[in-house]
Amino acid sequence: MKQLRVGMIGYKFMGKAHSNAYRSLPMFFPEALKPEMVAICGRNVSAVQEAADQLGWRESVTDWKELVNRDDIDLIDINAPSDAHKEIAIAAAKAGKHIFCEKPLALTLADAREMLQAAEDAGVTHMVGFNYRFSPAVRLAKKLVDSGRLGQIYHFRAWFLQDWIMDPQFPLVWRLQKEVAGSGSHGDLGAHLIDLAHYLVGDMQEVIGMSETFIKERPIASEMTGLSAKGSDGGPKGKVTVDDATLFMTRFENGALGSFEATRFAAGHRSTNSFEINGSLGSVKFDFERMNELEVYFTSDDEDVQGFRRVLATDPVHDYMEAWWPPGHTIGFEHTFTHEILELSSAISEGRQPVPSFYDGVKCQAVLEAVDKSIEERRWVQLSEM
Amino acid sequence: MKQLRVGMIGYKFMGKAHSNAYRSLPMFFPEALKPEMVAICGRNVSAVQEAADQLGWRESVTDWKELVNRDDIDLIDINAPSDAHKEIAIAAAKAGKHIFCEKPLALTLADAREMLQAAEDAGVTHMVGFNYRFSPAVRLAKKLVDSGRLGQIYHFRAWFLQDWIMDPQFPLVWRLQKEVAGSGSHGDLGAHLIDLAHYLVGDMQEVIGMSETFIKERPIASEMTGLSAKGSDGGPKGKVTVDDATLFMTRFENGALGSFEATRFAAGHRSTNSFEINGSLGSVKFDFERMNELEVYFTSDDEDVQGFRRVLATDPVHDYMEAWWPPGHTIGFEHTFTHEILELSSAISEGRQPVPSFYDGVKCQAVLEAVDKSIEERRWVQLSEM
Amino acid sequence: MKQLRVGMIGYKFMGKAHSNAYRSLPMFFPEALKPEMVAICGRNVSAVQEAADQLGWRESVTDWKELVNRDDIDLIDINAPSDAHKEIAIAAAKAGKHIFCEKPLALTLADAREMLQAAEDAGVTHMVGFNYRFSPAVRLAKKLVDSGRLGQIYHFRAWFLQDWIMDPQFPLVWRLQKEVAGSGSHGDLGAHLIDLAHYLVGDMQEVIGMSETFIKERPIASEMTGLSAKGSDGGPKGKVTVDDATLFMTRFENGALGSFEATRFAAGHRSTNSFEINGSLGSVKFDFERMNELEVYFTSDDEDVQGFRRVLATDPVHDYMEAWWPPGHTIGFEHTFTHEILELSSAISEGRQPVPSFYDGVKCQAVLEAVDKSIEERRWVQLSEM
Amino acid sequence: MKQLRVGMIGYKFMGKAHSNAYRSLPMFFPEALKPEMVAICGRNVSAVQEAADQLGWRESVTDWKELVNRDDIDLIDINAPSDAHKEIAIAAAKAGKHIFCEKPLALTLADAREMLQAAEDAGVTHMVGFNYRFSPAVRLAKKLVDSGRLGQIYHFRAWFLQDWIMDPQFPLVWRLQKEVAGSGSHGDLGAHLIDLAHYLVGDMQEVIGMSETFIKERPIASEMTGLSAKGSDGGPKGKVTVDDATLFMTRFENGALGSFEATRFAAGHRSTNSFEINGSLGSVKFDFERMNELEVYFTSDDEDVQGFRRVLATDPVHDYMEAWWPPGHTIGFEHTFTHEILELSSAISEGRQPVPSFYDGVKCQAVLEAVDKSIEERRWVQLSEM
Repeated sequence: MKQLRVGMIGYKFMGKAHSNAYRSLPMFFPEALKPEMVAICGRNVSAVQEAADQLGWRESVTDWKELVNRDDIDLIDINAPSDAHKEIAIAAAKAGKHIFCEKPLALTLADAREMLQAAEDAGVTHMVGFNYRFSPAVRLAKKLVDSGRLGQIYHFRAWFLQDWIMDPQFPLVWRLQKEVAGSGSHGDLGAHLIDLAHYLVGDMQEVIGMSETFIKERPIASEMTGLSAKGSDGGPKGKVTVDDATLFMTRFENGALGSFEATRFAAGHRSTNSFEINGSLGSVKFDFERMNELEVYFTSDDEDVQGFRRVLATDPVHDYMEAWWPPGHTIGFEHTFTHEILELSSAISEGRQPVPSFYDGVKCQAVLEAVDKSIEERRWVQLSEM
Repeated sequence: MKQLRVGMIGYKFMGKAHSNAYRSLPMFFPEALKPEMVAICGRNVSAVQEAADQLGWRESVTDWKELVNRDDIDLIDINAPSDAHKEIAIAAAKAGKHIFCEKPLALTLADAREMLQAAEDAGVTHMVGFNYRFSPAVRLAKKLVDSGRLGQIYHFRAWFLQDWIMDPQFPLVWRLQKEVAGSGSHGDLGAHLIDLAHYLVGDMQEVIGMSETFIKERPIASEMTGLSAKGSDGGPKGKVTVDDATLFMTRFENGALGSFEATRFAAGHRSTNSFEINGSLGSVKFDFERMNELEVYFTSDDEDVQGFRRVLATDPVHDYMEAWWPPGHTIGFEHTFTHEILELSSAISEGRQPVPSFYDGVKCQAVLEAVDKSIEERRWVQLSEM
Repeated sequence: MKQLRVGMIGYKFMGKAHSNAYRSLPMFFPEALKPEMVAICGRNVSAVQEAADQLGWRESVTDWKELVNRDDIDLIDINAPSDAHKEIAIAAAKAGKHIFCEKPLALTLADAREMLQAAEDAGVTHMVGFNYRFSPAVRLAKKLVDSGRLGQIYHFRAWFLQDWIMDPQFPLVWRLQKEVAGSGSHGDLGAHLIDLAHYLVGDMQEVIGMSETFIKERPIASEMTGLSAKGSDGGPKGKVTVDDATLFMTRFENGALGSFEATRFAAGHRSTNSFEINGSLGSVKFDFERMNELEVYFTSDDEDVQGFRRVLATDPVHDYMEAWWPPGHTIGFEHTFTHEILELSSAISEGRQPVPSFYDGVKCQAVLEAVDKSIEERRWVQLSEM
Repeated sequence: MKQLRVGMIGYKFMGKAHSNAYRSLPMFFPEALKPEMVAICGRNVSAVQEAADQLGWRESVTDWKELVNRDDIDLIDINAPSDAHKEIAIAAAKAGKHIFCEKPLALTLADAREMLQAAEDAGVTHMVGFNYRFSPAVRLAKKLVDSGRLGQIYHFRAWFLQDWIMDPQFPLVWRLQKEVAGSGSHGDLGAHLIDLAHYLVGDMQEVIGMSETFIKERPIASEMTGLSAKGSDGGPKGKVTVDDATLFMTRFENGALGSFEATRFAAGHRSTNSFEINGSLGSVKFDFERMNELEVYFTSDDEDVQGFRRVLATDPVHDYMEAWWPPGHTIGFEHTFTHEILELSSAISEGRQPVPSFYDGVKCQAVLEAVDKSIEERRWVQLSEM
């Protein structure tokens, strides 16, 4: 059994999700490279040590530059805040390490392209963390599209709705600061939708968007974590510099029409990551809150029993599911990452680039930035301009 | 266009539903006999006159014996309280009138048989009001069963759940008095489930039941109506003499297993009349609160897209629906009655008995009574004993 | 009981729906003016006579100009194809008749304004047929918004998805011809969404849209009807001159963001007219295929039981429902029209304008046209430009 | 950090599920005893060694008697076929080991009682594997019942529907042989429903059941595994000696009525483990195929917005969920076991018995056997007879 020695930078929400994936991989996919969880890196000595203990890393370190240059590391996993991605990724590439970087790849398209270039120049494996591609139900959608069973695609509509910052007293965490996060719901949630659109429908030709920041000032966060935080009541406030919600429309190169909405202000939606595809021969619908299900419709069904089928994508025929539990026994969010790591592991074994790679990260970044430009200039922006 | 001259006895919930059906029939099914709403009958002079005006009857009368003997009446429609069914039906049969009688047909099996005998002796058309058979989605279920598309039937489970008398202060209306209503949820709700079971699966071999009256005393109703009433607070109470809930299990003659539950104590269920059938080749599910839908599953679907389909039974291919609105435009509860009257009208035109006839009413009554017997004697009761 | 004498022009899908509403009104809302169905008008003598017989009109006529000037008519009901609305409405106004006109009010904003002006000048009652406002579940949404129970509105998203013309062999009916229909999915389906947005959220500030005609040529229809038709196979084809799908985004005057999609190319969606509203205190979701339901979420619910409630809007507390059936017994599509006629009847009785009036028809037309302009000029269009 | 040294007997479906739970525990619940996966035991040397490698056990052994007596083991985990439970459990108790035994506890009530007695005599910790209690959504149901928020309980209905052996060619695996499995759907699926009923509603007073074996003979399995197997086509057949489906009704000691159905012949249901509770103040519904959700209804909701809420039990307020992912990010089937092991670990730490213990296993067995007796003797059986 060959090993994959990992050094990981970041240890919050995504760090925990990745750690869990590394640990789950050998139990469910024993044919994959076996991840060895060598070292985890963070700035706060005691916090990162605690994370190492809990998440199962052999050691904790605080200097990522040292980490990326260690000989006993094959793969650098980057899930630090978005503003740190670029520098680390380029350093890792130069050190000849394979790279797994969380999305969004970078704060800007230019940065993303630089990262891709560095990885290509170094000849290393590079992957970007669009984990939703790895839901078995999403794979089924992909299979139906690619096999032509949905026919020509006419429509793609997608929305990622959350409600975790609706309280105006929710503090100004890093995800609400443009200089760290790059953007708000657009880069955090919309990026996933854009990647799914690329994966399922194809490239976009032009976009136009709109966005809003509903709560313009928030309490300074006394303590910052991934998705939760405590503000100091009555304390000083700071300006929210990212979007609370961003919508856009697109025309795909294949003629399909797309609409997208990402918001953190949809009361009742904890994490509704949902899309629908309508083709000439059928349709599919997905909602991440019921991630094991795909609704599927075929125009060719007998005319008296036409209707959307609720397919529970837990049968052995569905991607990855033979490795898990008997049919009808669902898996959770976290295993989108397990499957993602499996793809990374396979790619490394086979000497190819994984899908999605930095190339897909760049493509997503181009759309994010085209939408931003369309909002700023209040006009349709061609992807070819980017 | 031939006419069907109707005299109707009863003018509350069911009287209104029937009146609406008579009025709707010619607009949506112009090929049917055209109902002429001749006279409506009730005991309270002013109330029945008001009903006549509102519901569109030419005259109101108070003596049903006179009504059933009028020459200008072809059909007697009986929707008075259950304890009045027998006497009226027999008189109508003797007068040579066609009869449409609400369910349950009678208070006892003996009475129901007597009614059937009288109707057969008189050679008149007789129908019993199991209206749920006439939902297009239920017809689709029937079609799938009869055509063999569900294969051999293994299971039938059904429940009719309501919550309208959960408040202990809800008064003692006639539906809660055994001498008028015959039984409670069993005869009111369970009767519909039993009829659907007969319609969709076939005859039963044996049954065993259990029942309960959760609220044993209630305020005497100061004013009684169909499904709502006002009690006098702090006033005298009377004993509830019917069941609040009745459950039973059955073995069908074809080997299928059945379970039934009728209750008025299921909080949140305004009127959940629901069943599921599992066969060797597929399954169907129905819920009356979404009466335009049938969920359908086939074992023969491609293995990667197996799942229950939500079929909206509003396409022209679905029974009755070509007469209504374009696909996707739903119809309401009331038109189960319109379709029921259509069947009655067709049967009269064609000189045959409608389905369901008093024969089906008797068969339902036999099961109701077998269940009662099984509860009283705490044992399995064979339908052959009845 | 006072009467409302009606003359109706048009007798296809909408003519049938309106006729049914006139007939249902007195049975369920006896307090309303009683519609007298005096005359129905169409160009084809025998077809309109057949319609009169089936739908219950006293006479059939072929000259609408004569009809609008008859002394025994109080209300002119216009549901002829859209290109005929203007001329009839203006003539009816000049003749002093009340007017009930189907949507879209006219082919152009200028025409719509002319119609409103004529009606105002004549001092007649004028109503436009946005029937979806009259679903009890939609009324509940309106009540929740207006009472502040949803708080400040952040998002409105709406889509009206159908699939009835997806077959490229479906013929070129009048609804696919710009000179008759004005537009395609935009004016037919989108108009309803726009009106619901006005009703539920308020006025719009600016819009930008996109549209597409996926099937550009179709067989010439040998026979044209409302929503179905037969083409002549292999026969000549004509150009489709309306949109198959139109999407747009909007910023409301109150700061909310809106997205809209109307399409006839969404396989599996017979008639999904759906919207969602997200506010600072709660959210609601509606889907016309389940028109008796509204999903409702409140941020103020106890934190362990927060979730969207499936409210079945069939309780007496819900608008209109006390007139119908007991709770849990649903109504169908057609009664949105019954309630609409009730509002018209009440307005006439009370000497006020109904809601929605031609004023709302004009406002909708302004948005339709602003979207068209935004598509043509590829830019955001202010409603103030219109 | 204290350790919990585990020896596990069995390595198929449940062995994998338990192993995964032991591995997950320290990452998500670092405060718990840390499981040390010492040894896994099975009869097939190479298969158990392969399992040890894949599932992460330090060593593999083939002699369970030796295992239960090792000094370096604190806990014996028994997930071998049901007929082996008793002997192992009693030996483990005598060796002073804590015991975690899969359900059903034993093949007979007498055996189960003997096991409980042995564990009590030895003073060891004993737990039975009713894992569904540990779904956060089920815990929420329990909390609502116990706090009185559902009021007096009137109804409990539950069904566990699967379809994995519907194909008559599916072979005669051990789960279809009475001498190994004890019973079929009854003990496999019904046992879970019975335990949930005990947990959520309370003890039963009397039961009556019915059962059926639809496919009476099946091909001899050439290779046997947990839930899947290969038969030899055209080869010899053997008699199925367990039930394919078992239904029963019950009266609870608190007066509630219960109905239960367990079947492996419900086409389309991969694993629908579902229950509903109706109380005087509210209701809850659960379906394991959507295990992160609980539908909740309260009679006290404002009268215009009453309806079942879809609560996604993934908020920090919900049991266990603070340890996992942000709200809206669901967990899978497998973590019912992680939470189960957490309870076991806590009980051992705190020197108390876990819930559910062998006591609950015995109580479940009593109901299973009472139902069997009621089927055999065709009569109501009192639990007090057992």
